[in-house]
Amino acid sequence: MKKIINRPDDVVDEMLKGLVLSNPDKLSAVFEKRIIYRKDPYLNKVAVISGSGSGHEPDQAFYVGRGMLDAACAGQVFAAPTLDAIVDAAKLVDRGRGVLFLVKNYTGDRANFEMASEMLEFEGGPDVDTVIINDDVAVKDSTFTAGRRGVAGAMFVYKIVGAKSEEEGVNLKSLKTLAMEVNDNVRSMGFALKSCTTPAKGSPTFDLGPDEIELGVGLHGEPGRQRVKFMPADQVIKTITDAVVEDLPYASGDEVAVMVNGLGGTPIGELYISAKIVHEILENKKIKIFKTYVNNFCTSLDMEGCSVSLLRLNEEFKKLLQSPADIPVRYF
Amino acid sequence: MKKIINRPDDVVDEMLKGLVLSNPDKLSAVFEKRIIYRKDPYLNKVAVISGSGSGHEPDQAFYVGRGMLDAACAGQVFAAPTLDAIVDAAKLVDRGRGVLFLVKNYTGDRANFEMASEMLEFEGGPDVDTVIINDDVAVKDSTFTAGRRGVAGAMFVYKIVGAKSEEEGVNLKSLKTLAMEVNDNVRSMGFALKSCTTPAKGSPTFDLGPDEIELGVGLHGEPGRQRVKFMPADQVIKTITDAVVEDLPYASGDEVAVMVNGLGGTPIGELYISAKIVHEILENKKIKIFKTYVNNFCTSLDMEGCSVSLLRLNEEFKKLLQSPADIPVRYF
Repeated sequence: MKKIINRPDDVVDEMLKGLVLSNPDKLSAVFEKRIIYRKDPYLNKVAVISGSGSGHEPDQAFYVGRGMLDAACAGQVFAAPTLDAIVDAAKLVDRGRGVLFLVKNYTGDRANFEMASEMLEFEGGPDVDTVIINDDVAVKDSTFTAGRRGVAGAMFVYKIVGAKSEEEGVNLKSLKTLAMEVNDNVRSMGFALKSCTTPAKGSPTFDLGPDEIELGVGLHGEPGRQRVKFMPADQVIKTITDAVVEDLPYASGDEVAVMVNGLGGTPIGELYISAKIVHEILENKKIKIFKTYVNNFCTSLDMEGCSVSLLRLNEEFKKLLQSPADIPVRYF
Repeated sequence: MKKIINRPDDVVDEMLKGLVLSNPDKLSAVFEKRIIYRKDPYLNKVAVISGSGSGHEPDQAFYVGRGMLDAACAGQVFAAPTLDAIVDAAKLVDRGRGVLFLVKNYTGDRANFEMASEMLEFEGGPDVDTVIINDDVAVKDSTFTAGRRGVAGAMFVYKIVGAKSEEEGVNLKSLKTLAMEVNDNVRSMGFALKSCTTPAKGSPTFDLGPDEIELGVGLHGEPGRQRVKFMPADQVIKTITDAVVEDLPYASGDEVAVMVNGLGGTPIGELYISAKIVHEILENKKIKIFKTYVNNFCTSLDMEGCSVSLLRLNEEFKKLLQSPADIPVRYF
């Protein structure tokens, strides 16, 4: 294994330190609990928190900032954040209006967020509620979940919910309803050309032959829908995009946001080739594209491959997607 | 070779189509010449153009937009843009104030930009001038260059020059002086853990053993300064950062911008670990960090590794770095 790391056990802590050092005006942290939170003062909004295992960067500590998340709880690589970190994060960012947890559907994450909610209720506050995000159409259940997994579509939930809370100061119940509405309208599917390698294990999480693709791969390298022979971009992107479109289903006349999400080791050039193909497929189906997001948004360490997410839009979603977010991950 | 591509010959064209389709309000293209240019109307500014072989995305077509580049000329993967594309791009984006070419120092790129300048002079305009960027301290000459290579530090040149031209409408001569001044104050060095694989060749450009690092690797996989044994992050980042610091040299009391640039296949989490180490090194040397940039800015396809660039700042550079750029590559 060659990675730009020191000791495997220190990977997450050193990464979070680098994140905060690089954004001294925007971020604070409780490093011993791996909580990253907004430094800028804010008031009169429901706080929004997400959390999961690390290794999916920029998801989610890199999305903490005005107009998106108020805090993120990071676990070790591919391991859920701890119960007490979630409890502390909620207390830290609550401004008296309550806290909404946005959680991608994985058994470990759900369990810890659920226990944290119970503990906070027992302790008398703050008010919390949770929305589980499950946008991955690849498989019904998986080695890591009961029910569908949450993947890159979660970024649309963070963005829309974060903007609504920041700009309109709605209450916890309304914000939860909005988050569920976004989740109901987003679907995703991805594929891997190459497995990720966790720092702890040091060798590929799964074996994939030189002429094989894992269709519907999970964010931790867990199995997808089907192992298939290598296909050119046109064919593999059509396969996953069709699966996404047919699932909701998205229909002629719908307006959508598209996310082409790299899994970590794939160059952005290949993601734009994928975006071209998605545009052609949707044009054929007379599904209108409002906005296209192409980058590494929710990754699996150094996995090669990508996912396609579609979000069916209404006027409110469109407005909230377009409102600015001041997040640490950026170019210029 | 497994990549998300169709025919290797079509990689660049399909990528550029994806880029324009994903940014219909911002970008136009002359696809047959691989010119990407700003769609928004602008007046009374010197136009700024960069160009080089493709495979370095987001550099440089992905930086075309208000406050940065007015056009980019893309060659095939790792091959210079054509002479006539450069000539056409200059005519296309000139608004009567002239055009500044910002060119990373590679023999092929220089030759074509130089011939384009001569042709434009022969044809009677527009006025053009060129600044060669050569920030890479790794090697004096290389297989691709006479003199030092231009690498990720070029992004600081694009950003500062683009902002100055956009906001202050200075003339071509002043803009050239500014570009040279930025180039004089920026230094970079990188390393590779894994070679890139070009679509045309389909196998790694160079061989690197499982316990080896290529220190000072070039952006096309050309040899660097030294082949060394694998080292942990602390050590390899210190090696390249020290080489950068000693070169200018940057001194105690200097204020700098830091860029930690991924080479394409390295997860952003590892780049932030690197950023932490750079912060500690510079703090020790009492070099003050004004702003830290961490991402894939100037890549080598799927190469794994990163580079560190430092830019010594003055008040003007600081102001221009912070002014907004509306470029297609983004998150939200």
